[in-house]
Amino acid sequence: MKRIADSTVRRLSMYLRYLEDLDTRGQQTASSDELAHLCGTTPAQVRKDLSFFGSFGKRGLGYPVHELTAHLREILGLQREWKVIIVGAGKIGAALANYRGFRQRGFTVVGVYDHDPAKVGKAWGDATIRSMDTLAQDIQREEAPIAVLAIPAENAQAVVDQIVAAGIRAILNFAPTQISVPPHVSLKSVNMAMELEGLSFALTNAGLLDQGAA
Amino acid sequence: MKRIADSTVRRLSMYLRYLEDLDTRGQQTASSDELAHLCGTTPAQVRKDLSFFGSFGKRGLGYPVHELTAHLREILGLQREWKVIIVGAGKIGAALANYRGFRQRGFTVVGVYDHDPAKVGKAWGDATIRSMDTLAQDIQREEAPIAVLAIPAENAQAVVDQIVAAGIRAILNFAPTQISVPPHVSLKSVNMAMELEGLSFALTNAGLLDQGAA
Repeated sequence: MKRIADSTVRRLSMYLRYLEDLDTRGQQTASSDELAHLCGTTPAQVRKDLSFFGSFGKRGLGYPVHELTAHLREILGLQREWKVIIVGAGKIGAALANYRGFRQRGFTVVGVYDHDPAKVGKAWGDATIRSMDTLAQDIQREEAPIAVLAIPAENAQAVVDQIVAAGIRAILNFAPTQISVPPHVSLKSVNMAMELEGLSFALTNAGLLDQGAA
Repeated sequence: MKRIADSTVRRLSMYLRYLEDLDTRGQQTASSDELAHLCGTTPAQVRKDLSFFGSFGKRGLGYPVHELTAHLREILGLQREWKVIIVGAGKIGAALANYRGFRQRGFTVVGVYDHDPAKVGKAWGDATIRSMDTLAQDIQREEAPIAVLAIPAENAQAVVDQIVAAGIRAILNFAPTQISVPPHVSLKSVNMAMELEGLSFALTNAGLLDQGAA
């Protein structure tokens, strides 16, 4: 089977957001033109992205909103709950532990962990900050597959090795460093400074950036 | 001139990070193999990315580390200071206002803004939280070109319209919604829930994700 680019998956997430919105408002069908306009892409791209997963919609009638919403949720693996642990109880960890958008999409934060004894035991909304000493055994007991890494660059790889050994299979990395994972582990990195660098590049080289390929 | 994909700019940021590290350690030259290995890409991709901006390095000798570092900083627009305002003094705003990585790359946070009267006037590290009432005039006075948006989805577009009218030319958006900007304004969005959805997709469809195209 053909492999799927990360940028395609991001667009699927975006289609889903708008389709859910249309579904809530009772709209029955949506055209590729409409989805493209809402998501800032082209109708041809919408048709190509969706055709990959089978035949949706009929020429001239558009996509059935409710059916496509359900199908996209299934494709994205959102028809179930995912247990997530957050490593690092700093400001980014705090922002993520309380992020409404996670729970809405079926991501449940089952634990927040920190090295700092002064933080351990404190309550953060529904979660209590736990010691890193119990991290590995908690991952195994909870069978949590996803970890969010919100720790400094220095400790990142050592923590990654520890949580991967404990069973984590997907990592969202906010530590400002490149980390290595074995092939069976999925990794996505968000680097705040690199995002701003993309903007300084755009400001410096106006017109050079191909927004369509972003 | 050919336009450049966003993914290329991200790789340039990454090459720069490793070259700076090699430069600090006194290494004179780096091969495309070495850069590719450090950045998780292929030597052919490294050569292609760098050739776009002119002819660096000599066949068999590798790239001159110090010279290429300086050139990449110039390409990315990092040889100057960029003034940044942060809109939203919630947890993500707090994490970003204090993010060391910004200052290290020449991004100076000149103001943090919030609607909440209870927050206005409070000191956050070097910055004091200011009222949204002065946002537009501050952007004009400081000539800040970059805004980071860390506010709820509901207010996002209204705030964007206001800051763009005041002179903002680049926006890093953390509000979990699609926003519209005029063509002269650059926009990058980070959506935490969508990042996790990329991981749930990968966990659900093991082997389907083309990591190389990410």
